[in-house]
Amino acid sequence: MEIIESIQNPKVKTWKKLHSKKGRETTGTFLIEGIHLIEEALKAFIPMKELIINSEKEVPSEWKVSNIPHVFVSAKVLKEICETETPQGYVAVCELPDNRNVLLEKGKFLLIDGVQDPGNVGAIIRTADAAGIDGIILGEGSVDPFNGKVIRSTQGSLFHLPVQKMNLEEALQICRENHIPIFGTTLTGSTYNAIAPQEHFALIVGNEGSGVQETLLNQCDQNLYIPIYGNAESLNVAIATGILLYHLRG
Amino acid sequence: MEIIESIQNPKVKTWKKLHSKKGRETTGTFLIEGIHLIEEALKAFIPMKELIINSEKEVPSEWKVSNIPHVFVSAKVLKEICETETPQGYVAVCELPDNRNVLLEKGKFLLIDGVQDPGNVGAIIRTADAAGIDGIILGEGSVDPFNGKVIRSTQGSLFHLPVQKMNLEEALQICRENHIPIFGTTLTGSTYNAIAPQEHFALIVGNEGSGVQETLLNQCDQNLYIPIYGNAESLNVAIATGILLYHLRG
Repeated sequence: MEIIESIQNPKVKTWKKLHSKKGRETTGTFLIEGIHLIEEALKAFIPMKELIINSEKEVPSEWKVSNIPHVFVSAKVLKEICETETPQGYVAVCELPDNRNVLLEKGKFLLIDGVQDPGNVGAIIRTADAAGIDGIILGEGSVDPFNGKVIRSTQGSLFHLPVQKMNLEEALQICRENHIPIFGTTLTGSTYNAIAPQEHFALIVGNEGSGVQETLLNQCDQNLYIPIYGNAESLNVAIATGILLYHLRG
Repeated sequence: MEIIESIQNPKVKTWKKLHSKKGRETTGTFLIEGIHLIEEALKAFIPMKELIINSEKEVPSEWKVSNIPHVFVSAKVLKEICETETPQGYVAVCELPDNRNVLLEKGKFLLIDGVQDPGNVGAIIRTADAAGIDGIILGEGSVDPFNGKVIRSTQGSLFHLPVQKMNLEEALQICRENHIPIFGTTLTGSTYNAIAPQEHFALIVGNEGSGVQETLLNQCDQNLYIPIYGNAESLNVAIATGILLYHLRG
């Protein structure tokens, strides 16, 4: 068994480039770390190019991975390509999915406008999955969903529903053509629970500091807000998304 | 103006001890960092023992702090006592509040059972503040609310509503005596939105992995759950708390 032991090995350098958005987009691949995420990706038939394994560990026998090349590496190399502090010993190089998989015909959709914190975007994707949302559109100003911290924060939900990067003006245009009601989120407007649950909807949530862009809010059928009853200035965007999605889906 | 420049200064060592729960409890004080949190604490009349200021910065003139001793330190000392990577230059040593301020008579209360992640507890306190909750009880297994990361995650909400550490069995006993309906959270039970909003309630949320302890659930009037419609295994505890509090308060 050949084991890659040097962090100078060209393969190691290539893998490390996948920590950046540029590296992922150039190669069309991204990394996932740990048994749980790899199992979620396998279940979702995410194409994998390589499985990178700490040579002191075994590949779980139930993994159906016989057609995926295995690369064994030292613990030191594995630590080098992992972003977590205590890596479990398993990393997969996956193919970025085709970026045209959210149909926006009928259904429940979430549009994310400029949410920048990876933990927030990951929590939002996980929450949208729990709420049974049909697809997520990420506008240009949001963090890349294949960022390692986003993926870990989704706890596998990134592989459960389509997540697509798209210009939000275009997405709203498609929603209008398909007669999907569009709801923005603001600090004024209609109290969210004055709106009845909807069979089809597109909800837009926005940046941690500045919210949804004005030009997008102007194109919404209604703008919703969550009342603040105490002295907090605002709600965290992932928590607001949870309250709104569970209310709208009914 | 005397400026503390050495990180070996006994004062600096004393301040650093406040990063640990033990240090806070021994001295009865805790640290807060940054202009926003200090302003929130001043507005809430949290007693302050010392204001520590980077000697290159000025004290904002609108701060009503004339009776609080000012200690000027070098940027290096300030960095040493801060937990954030790019400190703003202001730290306050505050007195821990009296731990008997949540009355549990009538009102809306949140009980936290063993939530361990500081970011989660901070987001929960912020969300409970937004939802206009009257007080929070933290059981023994939860992270200390005066942990620096909890305080930063609350974004000042820690100073907006009473947060008390207390044995949860005792808290439930008091709720029962006061005829406050108690709601647990589980993965089975009643769907949360089958329950009408309540004028008075105590909601218990639990540990990230194992949820609320069985012995506490057995003492609840009703146990609520949030349905998972997609393929996520669970919701983040702070997001679940947001959905439940906003539903229960109506």
